[in-house]
Amino acid sequence: MKSDVKTIVEVTVIGKDRKGVVADITNFIFKNNGNIEQVNQNVVRELFGMQLEASFNHVNKEDLSSGLRQLAHKLNMEVKVHFQEPDRSRNVAILVSKEPHCLTKLLEAKSKTEIDANIAVIIGSEKTLEYMAKEFSVPFYHVDHTDHTMAELEILKIIELHNIDLILLGRYMRILTPNFVWRYRNRIINIHPSLLPAFPGAYAYVQAYERGAKIVGCTAHFVTEDLDQGPIICQKAFQVSPNDNVDTIRERGQSLEAITLLEAVKLYLEGRLEVNWGRVYLKDPK
Amino acid sequence: MKSDVKTIVEVTVIGKDRKGVVADITNFIFKNNGNIEQVNQNVVRELFGMQLEASFNHVNKEDLSSGLRQLAHKLNMEVKVHFQEPDRSRNVAILVSKEPHCLTKLLEAKSKTEIDANIAVIIGSEKTLEYMAKEFSVPFYHVDHTDHTMAELEILKIIELHNIDLILLGRYMRILTPNFVWRYRNRIINIHPSLLPAFPGAYAYVQAYERGAKIVGCTAHFVTEDLDQGPIICQKAFQVSPNDNVDTIRERGQSLEAITLLEAVKLYLEGRLEVNWGRVYLKDPK
Amino acid sequence: MKSDVKTIVEVTVIGKDRKGVVADITNFIFKNNGNIEQVNQNVVRELFGMQLEASFNHVNKEDLSSGLRQLAHKLNMEVKVHFQEPDRSRNVAILVSKEPHCLTKLLEAKSKTEIDANIAVIIGSEKTLEYMAKEFSVPFYHVDHTDHTMAELEILKIIELHNIDLILLGRYMRILTPNFVWRYRNRIINIHPSLLPAFPGAYAYVQAYERGAKIVGCTAHFVTEDLDQGPIICQKAFQVSPNDNVDTIRERGQSLEAITLLEAVKLYLEGRLEVNWGRVYLKDPK
Amino acid sequence: MKSDVKTIVEVTVIGKDRKGVVADITNFIFKNNGNIEQVNQNVVRELFGMQLEASFNHVNKEDLSSGLRQLAHKLNMEVKVHFQEPDRSRNVAILVSKEPHCLTKLLEAKSKTEIDANIAVIIGSEKTLEYMAKEFSVPFYHVDHTDHTMAELEILKIIELHNIDLILLGRYMRILTPNFVWRYRNRIINIHPSLLPAFPGAYAYVQAYERGAKIVGCTAHFVTEDLDQGPIICQKAFQVSPNDNVDTIRERGQSLEAITLLEAVKLYLEGRLEVNWGRVYLKDPK
Repeated sequence: MKSDVKTIVEVTVIGKDRKGVVADITNFIFKNNGNIEQVNQNVVRELFGMQLEASFNHVNKEDLSSGLRQLAHKLNMEVKVHFQEPDRSRNVAILVSKEPHCLTKLLEAKSKTEIDANIAVIIGSEKTLEYMAKEFSVPFYHVDHTDHTMAELEILKIIELHNIDLILLGRYMRILTPNFVWRYRNRIINIHPSLLPAFPGAYAYVQAYERGAKIVGCTAHFVTEDLDQGPIICQKAFQVSPNDNVDTIRERGQSLEAITLLEAVKLYLEGRLEVNWGRVYLKDPK
Repeated sequence: MKSDVKTIVEVTVIGKDRKGVVADITNFIFKNNGNIEQVNQNVVRELFGMQLEASFNHVNKEDLSSGLRQLAHKLNMEVKVHFQEPDRSRNVAILVSKEPHCLTKLLEAKSKTEIDANIAVIIGSEKTLEYMAKEFSVPFYHVDHTDHTMAELEILKIIELHNIDLILLGRYMRILTPNFVWRYRNRIINIHPSLLPAFPGAYAYVQAYERGAKIVGCTAHFVTEDLDQGPIICQKAFQVSPNDNVDTIRERGQSLEAITLLEAVKLYLEGRLEVNWGRVYLKDPK
Repeated sequence: MKSDVKTIVEVTVIGKDRKGVVADITNFIFKNNGNIEQVNQNVVRELFGMQLEASFNHVNKEDLSSGLRQLAHKLNMEVKVHFQEPDRSRNVAILVSKEPHCLTKLLEAKSKTEIDANIAVIIGSEKTLEYMAKEFSVPFYHVDHTDHTMAELEILKIIELHNIDLILLGRYMRILTPNFVWRYRNRIINIHPSLLPAFPGAYAYVQAYERGAKIVGCTAHFVTEDLDQGPIICQKAFQVSPNDNVDTIRERGQSLEAITLLEAVKLYLEGRLEVNWGRVYLKDPK
Repeated sequence: MKSDVKTIVEVTVIGKDRKGVVADITNFIFKNNGNIEQVNQNVVRELFGMQLEASFNHVNKEDLSSGLRQLAHKLNMEVKVHFQEPDRSRNVAILVSKEPHCLTKLLEAKSKTEIDANIAVIIGSEKTLEYMAKEFSVPFYHVDHTDHTMAELEILKIIELHNIDLILLGRYMRILTPNFVWRYRNRIINIHPSLLPAFPGAYAYVQAYERGAKIVGCTAHFVTEDLDQGPIICQKAFQVSPNDNVDTIRERGQSLEAITLLEAVKLYLEGRLEVNWGRVYLKDPK
């Protein structure tokens, strides 16, 4: 099957053995008449990761995929190949822990048909929100997080099983490793309870209060290997009044988190988010 | 002259020789029947600084001042004693470099009697804004900043000469040393072109743009020895649109800077700002 | 019982309610003819902590203690009063997780009478090292760390039960909260696997290797509320060779960790460590 | 002229206009039968920079250079093409301000024929060290640094005029912009007075002393756009004794700086430094 419209492919190569990897992968793209649009490499905690976006005028997807897989196998690396398929309905996974506000908002938006995607699975580090999954008839997996590495591998399996396109961290409260996020580049959206880059890390509302911030807000952003530093999608803010305390700030903040994450999801599903050099560019609606 | 209302005094002790300083100063306060409300010590770049706020039911100000001066002299330290005098009209100094927007706003507010204080002096690291000082008949000093330490000492002299209560940094663009800021604790207000603690340092608008921030703003804050980390007084923000670029962000930001700094100045002059443990508490208007 | 040699007392006041605390505590010290040598206040995550060191020429310890307790109770704060007793033999607690190298070194040093103190208790977040405690006949407590706050409270109880003077973190791998560390100021020693302030946090050896550091080492330091920023006691280092990898660096580092922690413990027990303004000064041996 | 040994070329592309740049440059390399060994892109302060290292089995250098220049011109970008020529004698520029210790060491090493390179030019932000240049008969340029951007452009011109291969910052005390450093990737060596990543920035010795560091040292590193974060070449350290103060630490440190910078220069000139993913690998001597 040969496609005759322009095809965009995202290739992620992960492994320990980095010798010659850039040359071999870029040559492979070139020999298949691809244009390299972006290419980045990273080494974090001894893991090498290369992410490449290429465009093709004419390409046989299966041949390209299997060729890349063979090449990666030869190089002793793992490879992940995503073809951008703007027209297919998206499969969404939501990762949660105990806080319900984001999950509720997303499930309600789906049931009101505000979002055009299939919420395929909810994964919890706790069982707390299982009842909501049941209520909305979405499969729920509780993944034991005693060993974080094992938990991540299990989540990766669930996500591949459900052929997930977009992963939402709805107050998941855990940090994903490069091994996870590099496989889903620009496909994981987190909601952080501050106007990043201010107040990264946990305790964002407490910190904002103690620092005496007068404008407090939240940030929906793509997740990268750098904690709380991924490309910003949306931010929303409110003015702190002299009568506010940590509890009232958190309350107002959480309500805004749900709205902001939902807005980011909508923009993603409408295909309006373009990421270039660590920055999100908003494309006009079609 | 004995006052019979509660007197608040701020004492700053600065020097190299820190042995026994805390004990001697606190004992002196205690022997004069004062209550120590706050006390902090710091060592930065080999300079020791101690800042103490004490309240007295009955105190002879001249005796207290001269007693502290004698004690400091004995300890080989410099001392600065400020009595809080809520009723006296304030003398304000404005420090500037080249950008006119904050200075213009402040001078116009004064001429419209929006601010109840005497703009006693304008000090420029450049001559660029001298014409505005002339226009509003405010003394202007151009201080050569080739040697920053010398420039600071000259500014300190000008400020003491004009008996300044409040120092405004209206895009002064220089970093003041602990030796300067410790002498005017909670009396120096800076306007910074970001929602601190995000984007400290220079290039704040460029950084906000490159980071893809969707909410951009500015912060009026008291200046401390920690750069861009002083207690926040006011913050104002605006939403960035997809059509904004660095220039439009800067333009909108600068207009907000002037408004935010002016608001902070008004709150200060109305005696509504109380600083506790690095945080500003807004007191009700009288 | 009245002592007629100079007495040093360390007072820690912790609580939510900070109004007037500084004035009341300092006044109490003055009225008992004490000199305030150092005083600091902090607010972290809504907890207020004040730490004060005072010296007395003549003082009744019981009266001072009970007076401070009554005052703290009135102020709705918790208080901890330590009198420096240079001559009493020290009780030491060692906190561990899984790595044995520091614990082994300390227990062996004790059995060779290299350290003059009583190793009163070993507390493990895991059971891994229980066998070593048995071998050396030291009580071992396994504290479940699923809930970190509960674990800390349990450890505090064990430590008070055993009247502990010095707490050693021998690769405990957990972060203590201000509520814990403020109660044992300059009495908790940690060993960190880097030359602080370089490579704070976990993964120090991996980070040093990836950063290409040519000098790698470790740091024994007092624990404060600021992670990996407490006063440095000892540092030791080695040169990385081109043939080193993460494993050989870690191996050489761990051996140095045990030696460095032991050296810090000896200096502490010999009374040679004086802490001033965040810096350790080494006193001459007696 | 066709070379028939393997040729390594470093290509730097700089400019505002980044659309399609990666695709066009990588395609050009492929069409000339090159292998892309490393490729990075960066955007800092609105400047786009792409750095690529490629190897060729057979290549006509002039054709490749002029082809890249034509392509860059078409893309409205600036390009810099360096061919690695391991056998040619190196031209070295030394940038200084006022401190003589590094410059002296380098000039003496040259006069003792310890370093096999031509010290082609000394550039000073001050005139202080001009006398040393005269003594050793090396051209000296004093560049006025009132406007840092203009100063950099002037230095770039001088460096191109003298066909410089290696730039040494011998306590130059200024920060170079990406526009400068991207043109001389892995060709600028700085000496920093601390064991990086500890104590970046100015005042490193004072900070080390105030922090109470017990191991102090210095770092020779390649300069990148991230201040004090470039790949580490050499580090040397010494133990701080209880009798040391800032002055004795600085004195011992400065002597070590000169030795460490000289060692890094020798390793560079011997072709033993290989930079991969931000890390220096030391190759065996030939």
